[in-house]
Amino acid sequence: MGLIGTSLGMALRNAESRATPAGEIHVTGYDQDSRATSIARDRLAIDRKARSLEEAVAGAQVVVLATPVQAIRDLLAQLAPLLDEGSIVTDVASTKAQVCDWARDLLPAHADFVGGHPLAGREQSGAGAADPALFQGAIYCLTPDLRASQQALQRIETLVLAMGAKPYYIDPHEHDAYVAGVSHLPFLLSAALMRATSHSPAWREMSLLASSGFRDVSRLASGDPLMHRDICLTNSTALIRWIDEFINVLANVRDMLGQEDAEHLEALLRDAQQQRDTWLTNTPNARPGEEQYTQRPQVERRFLGLPKPFRRKRGS
Amino acid sequence: MGLIGTSLGMALRNAESRATPAGEIHVTGYDQDSRATSIARDRLAIDRKARSLEEAVAGAQVVVLATPVQAIRDLLAQLAPLLDEGSIVTDVASTKAQVCDWARDLLPAHADFVGGHPLAGREQSGAGAADPALFQGAIYCLTPDLRASQQALQRIETLVLAMGAKPYYIDPHEHDAYVAGVSHLPFLLSAALMRATSHSPAWREMSLLASSGFRDVSRLASGDPLMHRDICLTNSTALIRWIDEFINVLANVRDMLGQEDAEHLEALLRDAQQQRDTWLTNTPNARPGEEQYTQRPQVERRFLGLPKPFRRKRGS
Repeated sequence: MGLIGTSLGMALRNAESRATPAGEIHVTGYDQDSRATSIARDRLAIDRKARSLEEAVAGAQVVVLATPVQAIRDLLAQLAPLLDEGSIVTDVASTKAQVCDWARDLLPAHADFVGGHPLAGREQSGAGAADPALFQGAIYCLTPDLRASQQALQRIETLVLAMGAKPYYIDPHEHDAYVAGVSHLPFLLSAALMRATSHSPAWREMSLLASSGFRDVSRLASGDPLMHRDICLTNSTALIRWIDEFINVLANVRDMLGQEDAEHLEALLRDAQQQRDTWLTNTPNARPGEEQYTQRPQVERRFLGLPKPFRRKRGS
Repeated sequence: MGLIGTSLGMALRNAESRATPAGEIHVTGYDQDSRATSIARDRLAIDRKARSLEEAVAGAQVVVLATPVQAIRDLLAQLAPLLDEGSIVTDVASTKAQVCDWARDLLPAHADFVGGHPLAGREQSGAGAADPALFQGAIYCLTPDLRASQQALQRIETLVLAMGAKPYYIDPHEHDAYVAGVSHLPFLLSAALMRATSHSPAWREMSLLASSGFRDVSRLASGDPLMHRDICLTNSTALIRWIDEFINVLANVRDMLGQEDAEHLEALLRDAQQQRDTWLTNTPNARPGEEQYTQRPQVERRFLGLPKPFRRKRGS
């Protein structure tokens, strides 16, 4: 019942029942901190408060885990004996490979696992910051276990669509490598910028001159430290590669400055501007190539055991 | 007649004449590109278009240079023989030490120089993006030449207040060291992030997953490349020190990830979150200690030749 769990409850309860072939949706909420569940209840994000994991899961067709990544392993182990035949487990964690491995190892064969990651968030956390429109138009990554049934995929896809988000099928390892560059690296840059500047002896004076540029580049540093610690640690291999690449680029810029190399510096800044403008023009809801990932992977393909069963090769 | 020059014209022309003890303000605009001056005229940012530098400066009491930093040296040399007795020259460049040196070397003794830097901007450039409210509530750094008269300081201060901004006196070298950390480093991080990610072979797929966090951290990369090239090159010494400090911090984070050092990583992320929240709480218009810089430096102090004549020592 944090930001994402509560927003998800709100979005599902707001969904018109005709938009969900699964019929009317009943949401049960559970959090170790019962105050969070009370806030979620007051905000009409859930129909019912559960007082234990057992109570929350009893009779559930779909179980959504919305906790920091590191808590998911224990949670899966506790859930395993409680799951009904044919129930579906999903999560909303920002890294997927490790979570999918844990699910494969820990969940019983009669339950399906479909990993999930909505590309939505804000720097505030907690049920109080929840927003039913958080997922509207957002890409919602889905990384189904190879054993998951078509029915399970269809059901999760239905819920994602009911929240106004766009299902996006991707291999969990590819997912992690990509979000390391476009999500976890930017977060670390924000946090490292705050660290480097705020520990300067001149910070008191400097901070008076910090303006809107500083505010935006440092924004992600205000995110939940525990959640981000877990994200970084469960995606450290990909993230370290991106940090090295970033340090290379920055060291190059440093050399250009040291050599007063106006020509190469200008070329780099022009390229960065152009790349960003191109990216912005390809809006998040209609980027080229997006449609090829929104089609549910077929059983036939998924059981061939191909290394990257969910993606067409570029240009094919 | 770019973003800042045009916004400045608009703000001055919008100012109530009773708010400016200098009386009614007449604004003449000049740009090498006469289309920019026409846009500024259409947007009511100027009273009169000048067709040459000579025409623009003739009879001017205050001359405002709003060009990329590197153009200022030539401009000062061209201006020098055109300036009336008692006229005042100011600029709006993001680096101040070099500009102040040029002004001291190139301007005649009968004109006063007061360096300026409004802490305001946006990623769009040009007269079309100008906004008379751009300076509202913004800190406006002033770095007067030691020879500038009290009357010149008072006149520039009046104009700054008329635009709704807050005059903030600071030594030019301190100014440059500080903005290198809170403004130019964040800009380079944005540009380097775009460079590192957009040149990856996986960018096409990755870019689909880039969300609001990426958008904000990369925002400054959309700024004018020429302007930023000049800023970086005229402030390279301070900027290189900040790049080195930043790379140190990021390399430390890399080591924490490699060693799965959850404890230190969490401590760093918590500290960054707290520092940012503290900074945000101390809003830009009422930050602690801000008032001591908004008082005009006294002639007596400025002529003592003290190394830092415009600032009280911390704690005094």
